[in-house]
Amino acid sequence: MTKKGRVFSGARPTGRQHLGNYLGAMRNYVALQDEYECIYCIVDIHALTTVETTQELRANTYDMALDWLAVGIRPEESIMFVQSHVPQVTELHTILSMVTPLGKLTDLPTFKEKVRQNPNNVNYGLVGYPVLMTADIALYRAGLVPVGVDQGPHIEFARETVRSFNYRFNTNVLIEPQMKVTEVPKVLGIDGVQKMSKSLDNHIELASTPEETQKRVMMMVTDPQRMRRSDPGNPDVCNVFSLHKIFSSADEVANINVECRRAGIGCVDCKKLLAKNLNAHLEPFRARREALNQNPQQVWDVLHDGAKRARELAESTMRDVRAAVGLAE
Amino acid sequence: MTKKGRVFSGARPTGRQHLGNYLGAMRNYVALQDEYECIYCIVDIHALTTVETTQELRANTYDMALDWLAVGIRPEESIMFVQSHVPQVTELHTILSMVTPLGKLTDLPTFKEKVRQNPNNVNYGLVGYPVLMTADIALYRAGLVPVGVDQGPHIEFARETVRSFNYRFNTNVLIEPQMKVTEVPKVLGIDGVQKMSKSLDNHIELASTPEETQKRVMMMVTDPQRMRRSDPGNPDVCNVFSLHKIFSSADEVANINVECRRAGIGCVDCKKLLAKNLNAHLEPFRARREALNQNPQQVWDVLHDGAKRARELAESTMRDVRAAVGLAE
Repeated sequence: MTKKGRVFSGARPTGRQHLGNYLGAMRNYVALQDEYECIYCIVDIHALTTVETTQELRANTYDMALDWLAVGIRPEESIMFVQSHVPQVTELHTILSMVTPLGKLTDLPTFKEKVRQNPNNVNYGLVGYPVLMTADIALYRAGLVPVGVDQGPHIEFARETVRSFNYRFNTNVLIEPQMKVTEVPKVLGIDGVQKMSKSLDNHIELASTPEETQKRVMMMVTDPQRMRRSDPGNPDVCNVFSLHKIFSSADEVANINVECRRAGIGCVDCKKLLAKNLNAHLEPFRARREALNQNPQQVWDVLHDGAKRARELAESTMRDVRAAVGLAE
Repeated sequence: MTKKGRVFSGARPTGRQHLGNYLGAMRNYVALQDEYECIYCIVDIHALTTVETTQELRANTYDMALDWLAVGIRPEESIMFVQSHVPQVTELHTILSMVTPLGKLTDLPTFKEKVRQNPNNVNYGLVGYPVLMTADIALYRAGLVPVGVDQGPHIEFARETVRSFNYRFNTNVLIEPQMKVTEVPKVLGIDGVQKMSKSLDNHIELASTPEETQKRVMMMVTDPQRMRRSDPGNPDVCNVFSLHKIFSSADEVANINVECRRAGIGCVDCKKLLAKNLNAHLEPFRARREALNQNPQQVWDVLHDGAKRARELAESTMRDVRAAVGLAE
């Protein structure tokens, strides 16, 4: 089957994935496979820019890979690998750094934000984060990068850096990537206020058991104005309802939308229904995860095979890059 | 024969070498081989930090390698190679960049000087120059770096960066290099005022013919106070005399030191003698250069063989580095 183009996306190794990761990225990764040639990368070198200890790096890489496979990344078809297994990315990163003005990096809003968060740990690698990201994409000559709108400036940066390289060395060996903007729902944590995040412990892990999942759902904060069972609720401000819209049937959603507003259904029953539907959705992921986890080597094999295929693409690009730059063979 | 340790030194590919390069570095490179295991690198990636066009990069790499071999680098014994042929250096560079505070780089006097020279071309790669230099040295676990005293801050930077890495990852896989300070004469150009340099066209190339060499020597500026043949001269301020001290016999030097001061020898004869002695010194280099240049592939073979040996050392270091960092295998 002819695919419409090549997609690249990377994510830091954050270990066991949660519903926010799933709805924000992974679900989309899976869907893109039908139409595109997909390259999905666990960017462990990026993780070094801000991570203080790296003791969990290997385990987090494994757990994330496991979840990616569990939700439906098809490794025979897509390339799934670990960034540091393709060292060519650091070579391209270093070469691109020669055509990247320092001021452009220090002016990026994301850099300024990181400095604010971590004023005592502004390292040289952190400044170069967008250059390494550009290298990730350009190395595989990926035409499309699925991103949320907030990532726009980074893709624009990548495009400009590729243009600078091509212009300076009078070549067209690197490809300017295009953004593929994806509508992703903003997934709040069970607190109903903040974005779902492992560090806030307001998340629901994909790998949780049905019981754990139900327990987390039952803890979810609903419409804060609905104090008693007899109070009517407002689904429009309820995080449980947001998830119903994703995991429950259209009939169920329509029904809750009516019943909640007239106190016809209570939050407890509403959450039980969500837990049931969510568990049904997660069930096949759990089964696949369980099966793969019986033999961790299978997961590493997938990553190593992906790295091998990625290195071939990478080395082909680097041959062209080195020649364009004029480095001695 | 047991060597006393491992030496690393790198130089940018500046093409055909001149007397300044020879007396400042190459002569020392040759001598170090007797006592040390030597690794000499043509740092072409470094050249990208400031070079605007790279059309000459390949030719300059070749010409420099040719001159290194001509003056007596012994490639069976020492490792002589091109930086970009061992991409592991960019991998270590990228990892070290994560433990290098940005402020430390922008505070270095050499960086500030480069910004003054080139305010419109401050790229990210230029800022990281000392990190890449650290990676060069640390990648080969070289204990010693022969440098002039002015390079002291860079070696101190390398030591600190290695310490940061070892400390942060609680390891000792990288070695803190030591400076091997070498007394090198300050070699002035034929103008007798500025440092000998290709860009000032005040240089004498090692590869010049005897006639060209003599012609350049005859153009040398001597003691500017000595206007007429009958004026006594002052060898202490004469650049021709400085070179006599290197290339002429002790007797000749002693004799000129007396005769010049009492106008017993004129500048023309003094220069003719220098040209003769210099040519005698350069003669074996020219012969070797000529022979190697008959078959340029020989030179490339030396560089490729060096790169192969360098990659083995580099990969061994990187295996330890990746494990220390905790990257997934």
